[in-house]
Amino acid sequence: MRPSGRTPQQLRPIKITRNYIRHPEGSVLIEFGHTKVICNASIEERTPRFLKDQGKGWITAEYGMLPRSTHQRMQREASSGRQGGRTQEIQRLIGRALRAVVDLHALGERTITLDCDVIQADGGTRTAAITGSYVALVDAVNSLIKKGTLKKNPIHGAVAAVSVGIYQGTPILDLEYLEDSEAETDMNIVMNDAGAYIEIQGTAEGHAFRADELQSLLNLAGEGVKTLLAAQQAALA
Amino acid sequence: MRPSGRTPQQLRPIKITRNYIRHPEGSVLIEFGHTKVICNASIEERTPRFLKDQGKGWITAEYGMLPRSTHQRMQREASSGRQGGRTQEIQRLIGRALRAVVDLHALGERTITLDCDVIQADGGTRTAAITGSYVALVDAVNSLIKKGTLKKNPIHGAVAAVSVGIYQGTPILDLEYLEDSEAETDMNIVMNDAGAYIEIQGTAEGHAFRADELQSLLNLAGEGVKTLLAAQQAALA
Amino acid sequence: MRPSGRTPQQLRPIKITRNYIRHPEGSVLIEFGHTKVICNASIEERTPRFLKDQGKGWITAEYGMLPRSTHQRMQREASSGRQGGRTQEIQRLIGRALRAVVDLHALGERTITLDCDVIQADGGTRTAAITGSYVALVDAVNSLIKKGTLKKNPIHGAVAAVSVGIYQGTPILDLEYLEDSEAETDMNIVMNDAGAYIEIQGTAEGHAFRADELQSLLNLAGEGVKTLLAAQQAALA
Amino acid sequence: MRPSGRTPQQLRPIKITRNYIRHPEGSVLIEFGHTKVICNASIEERTPRFLKDQGKGWITAEYGMLPRSTHQRMQREASSGRQGGRTQEIQRLIGRALRAVVDLHALGERTITLDCDVIQADGGTRTAAITGSYVALVDAVNSLIKKGTLKKNPIHGAVAAVSVGIYQGTPILDLEYLEDSEAETDMNIVMNDAGAYIEIQGTAEGHAFRADELQSLLNLAGEGVKTLLAAQQAALA
Amino acid sequence: MRPSGRTPQQLRPIKITRNYIRHPEGSVLIEFGHTKVICNASIEERTPRFLKDQGKGWITAEYGMLPRSTHQRMQREASSGRQGGRTQEIQRLIGRALRAVVDLHALGERTITLDCDVIQADGGTRTAAITGSYVALVDAVNSLIKKGTLKKNPIHGAVAAVSVGIYQGTPILDLEYLEDSEAETDMNIVMNDAGAYIEIQGTAEGHAFRADELQSLLNLAGEGVKTLLAAQQAALA
Amino acid sequence: MRPSGRTPQQLRPIKITRNYIRHPEGSVLIEFGHTKVICNASIEERTPRFLKDQGKGWITAEYGMLPRSTHQRMQREASSGRQGGRTQEIQRLIGRALRAVVDLHALGERTITLDCDVIQADGGTRTAAITGSYVALVDAVNSLIKKGTLKKNPIHGAVAAVSVGIYQGTPILDLEYLEDSEAETDMNIVMNDAGAYIEIQGTAEGHAFRADELQSLLNLAGEGVKTLLAAQQAALA
Repeated sequence: MRPSGRTPQQLRPIKITRNYIRHPEGSVLIEFGHTKVICNASIEERTPRFLKDQGKGWITAEYGMLPRSTHQRMQREASSGRQGGRTQEIQRLIGRALRAVVDLHALGERTITLDCDVIQADGGTRTAAITGSYVALVDAVNSLIKKGTLKKNPIHGAVAAVSVGIYQGTPILDLEYLEDSEAETDMNIVMNDAGAYIEIQGTAEGHAFRADELQSLLNLAGEGVKTLLAAQQAALA
Repeated sequence: MRPSGRTPQQLRPIKITRNYIRHPEGSVLIEFGHTKVICNASIEERTPRFLKDQGKGWITAEYGMLPRSTHQRMQREASSGRQGGRTQEIQRLIGRALRAVVDLHALGERTITLDCDVIQADGGTRTAAITGSYVALVDAVNSLIKKGTLKKNPIHGAVAAVSVGIYQGTPILDLEYLEDSEAETDMNIVMNDAGAYIEIQGTAEGHAFRADELQSLLNLAGEGVKTLLAAQQAALA
Repeated sequence: MRPSGRTPQQLRPIKITRNYIRHPEGSVLIEFGHTKVICNASIEERTPRFLKDQGKGWITAEYGMLPRSTHQRMQREASSGRQGGRTQEIQRLIGRALRAVVDLHALGERTITLDCDVIQADGGTRTAAITGSYVALVDAVNSLIKKGTLKKNPIHGAVAAVSVGIYQGTPILDLEYLEDSEAETDMNIVMNDAGAYIEIQGTAEGHAFRADELQSLLNLAGEGVKTLLAAQQAALA
Repeated sequence: MRPSGRTPQQLRPIKITRNYIRHPEGSVLIEFGHTKVICNASIEERTPRFLKDQGKGWITAEYGMLPRSTHQRMQREASSGRQGGRTQEIQRLIGRALRAVVDLHALGERTITLDCDVIQADGGTRTAAITGSYVALVDAVNSLIKKGTLKKNPIHGAVAAVSVGIYQGTPILDLEYLEDSEAETDMNIVMNDAGAYIEIQGTAEGHAFRADELQSLLNLAGEGVKTLLAAQQAALA
Repeated sequence: MRPSGRTPQQLRPIKITRNYIRHPEGSVLIEFGHTKVICNASIEERTPRFLKDQGKGWITAEYGMLPRSTHQRMQREASSGRQGGRTQEIQRLIGRALRAVVDLHALGERTITLDCDVIQADGGTRTAAITGSYVALVDAVNSLIKKGTLKKNPIHGAVAAVSVGIYQGTPILDLEYLEDSEAETDMNIVMNDAGAYIEIQGTAEGHAFRADELQSLLNLAGEGVKTLLAAQQAALA
Repeated sequence: MRPSGRTPQQLRPIKITRNYIRHPEGSVLIEFGHTKVICNASIEERTPRFLKDQGKGWITAEYGMLPRSTHQRMQREASSGRQGGRTQEIQRLIGRALRAVVDLHALGERTITLDCDVIQADGGTRTAAITGSYVALVDAVNSLIKKGTLKKNPIHGAVAAVSVGIYQGTPILDLEYLEDSEAETDMNIVMNDAGAYIEIQGTAEGHAFRADELQSLLNLAGEGVKTLLAAQQAALA
């Protein structure tokens, strides 16, 4: 039924490449099938103004797509002069997801920025970005521990994300572009390694979803996230 | 336990005033306790470029807050020169919620814009905006039917929204500002009059929520939305 | 002759509602007939950079219109990314008018911002904004006096504003939209309670006005402002 | 009493140089003492969108100051990315002033833009800009008449402008910078060659002005404008 | 003498990977040592407005750097709201370089956009971008020929670019970051396969260069470009 | 052969007027034939952030064109809200050219900004701007020496610029607009008074240029710059 021949509960092949770019403190290329996102973690020894003198740090994210990461060329946001609403939603989501597993006081007065740049898009770019950014964040924090700057690891859990949706009447896991563009319901689920929810974003433009459909989607997502968390650990090992 | 003395499953007093502003085709002042939002529906006989020659219409929304609708004055977005990420997220959400109950082909090649302007904020502005906008939309569509422009009503359901959250360990309904700013988990639920979900947006920055907590929150929201849908019908009667 | 049946020298019904919004230090809804403007005064304990270390305060204003305050929906300035020339002219005018009755040294190093938001427009929004802002400003300053922050009242006079114009050859007071859009000459007059002029802005796009017409307009405005000043005092009593 | 030794009713030396820049259809350098403004008139054979298919033309203006036209260098507006409120007020004023003496239907579906660029500022830049732009406009219109494009002259009057103010208690004409920066009241008056008012803009930030003071200022302005209108005619002869 | 141990006339290792991203009509990853640039060619069947109805096409380029392609994180241009002067200079340069080898009439009324995105920077990003874009352009044009859209190849030559500079008194080829940041003179040379110059951009902020130094630099560049042109042909074979 | 009747190696008449505008520390009107550029030098006793606490100063430039300095009216950059790529390239070029002859440590912690505003354009505006700015810079620095602020002259050379190009197959010097718009190759050369190159920018959109053509152009430029350097000295004498 799925264009790729996958079963409804099957993820695409996941590939996580660490140390992808030379300069960042953490750098990951994550691939969910044909979706490819570079996640770079940068440490800066200062915090945003709203945290001034609070003795804590900050984790934030920025998201972008290369103009031709998509089937049709999109306008470059740097050239249009503003980041669109979708971009802002996604980068806010990534930031919240990662902050949910970090003790900001233990991080100290510094900022870690996750730059998530999609070089090839085929659905699920935001969930790939969250899943890959976690690995880049761990590498960045470990560099601080290694240098002795941090005594204690401020990361107290793991986080990964996956999309689920109802496609041709069937709940499926990890939608690719062809599925995503036709899905009646689309949901992104961010979970931690304790099996709890950090973020649930579900949308039904056409067809509202019933409580039992919601339950199926949550179950699918739970299994998918478990596999992704394992892939992160394998990459970090 | 709640600052207002409400029970966990108790909504704030709801007040819906129709024909609030003279000029719009639909105009509602909606109050969720101290939260007050003006929802104006404007009809324009043209559609956005991306719908050109598709024989269908569009429903969209814009959201704003008066600079001093909040406890502290916020910068005016017109003056800062850009709508922030939160604003964009909310106006995209309102648009999706309303489109979920409208047959855009039956609407014809016209656009209805819902302008949701918060004049006083005390938590729950986006759920009030959705709930009030539905009433303004019905009034606007009825004006088209009355004039004979539309033969058939393109609205095929009702939609309302409410927030739920975990506050001091307890799931509660319809958070006001004091609760919202302290809640461990915050969720906005948009549902239709068939009891199905149109949108679920749940976030846990501090404390991730378990499946059973999610269930409690969904139950609370279901009851809250029922009451709101009834309030809409009463106002429209 | 006038669409409303008013005599040339007749104001529309004036209504001033204090404490309209909960959060601001001063908040007024002012109505000149169908024109409705919310005037919120916000106190901030800092001054703009150009006044740094000068031992004096600042009064400033911002002006906006809800997109559907008008007959046709206007584009939201926050969305277009810039405040238009008309908006900037009006907010500069409101700020100058209020500063003319305040001793900025006696105010101390703080800023009071008047946010004037038109929720329904029917001509005369800038004169309503000035007249209502004065009342909001008095309430805000009184809150500082009550708290003991200010020992001495820095407000040394009252200010109100009204429009006058030549409509179908006759000088009239307080133009509503239908009159304004047809008037040959349009003038906004800001005066204090000593009967002196703070600001005169008169424009004749079509028909230039003679000295005797100017005199008639100034006389009409003088009477109108007197009534408005009395309405302010009544509201403040 | 005046820094320059002028009498209260004395204008600065006026100099009007036609054909100052080669390319424009009308080009004038106007000097009011040390204030120097280049006024270029450009004809384009199209009208703004809001005039589409109305069979009439448009006169508009843009205003700018070279960054070092002033005592202290100002930021270049092209570099700051927006035209300030003062700039917008002035260019709107210039446009209205010139439209007041032109029959836009007789002009036909074309636009004449007056670019007023201040190369040296010493007070009165907007009144110099209006006075000089009139001459540039006449030259541009004459070029259309000469080419046979226009059969009938659409200009039905002359317009000039001057500033007046109360300086050290005395009403004076044509304020230079030193006077302007200290004046208690500042007024710009635009009049036509019939002695009627096109625009009056008077402001009293510090000291409100009485009716008799207003009368003195209007009288001074009337005499000043007469001299300026004569200087325009002499330049055009 | 060079940090990498290269001889003055030695290029870094060049690697050209075609079909790097799935969606574009031409897609190349080019590496000059540690400098890595993705060059994507996108075909659109329309031309910019200034070419309307001229029967010819257009080649243009956009350039960007991932925020952490550099040693220190740079602000994302999409977030700052404008492309900086350096970005604009580079993208204009890339566009001119490619247009120099294309017959725009033979291309027909279509636009090919080269998006050059630096994912890792170590000096020479603009010369790598030009050299890689040529290969992507050839692939995009060949896709049009293969589909039969183009009968005749509009590309009439090859183009490549390299940097040269004076580092510690010695003329060197293909500067990496450490050399670039210290060089006294920095020059980018764009040449075609006939050995002629398309663009020369040489800058000496500190030390002006003599005619004989210029000659040495031009000679070095000529040899470097020959090698790059050969690498392009090898990749395209 | 040349439209003006000039020989290939002939400059247009050069005219340099010092003290053109009253307020700047240095002010020059430079004319290359019909090209007229005002170059104003402004001294500010602070440096940009990136030079903070480095004990050195900065020389920078801004460039603009009056909207009707050209044959067709261009949009005003202040009104479009951004400086175009060409403007940014030119102002960066002017800044680099002048910094090449100044010892920034000897200048001390201050900034000199050169505002180059083209009031009439006929080709060669950037080379005129560099040549004129040098004179304005000398005047500004001399004002600091005269006041005793600077003990030692930080300017250690002279700089001038000229354009060369291949027009109808012949290398020519100092292109005017008619030549520039048709030239096959266009090059701007900035040199110092030691005959060394500070900047070379050569572009061939249509026809690539051979090494021998480059040599001819460099020779022409060398002679042209010598004449310009002499004109600067004569003006400064």
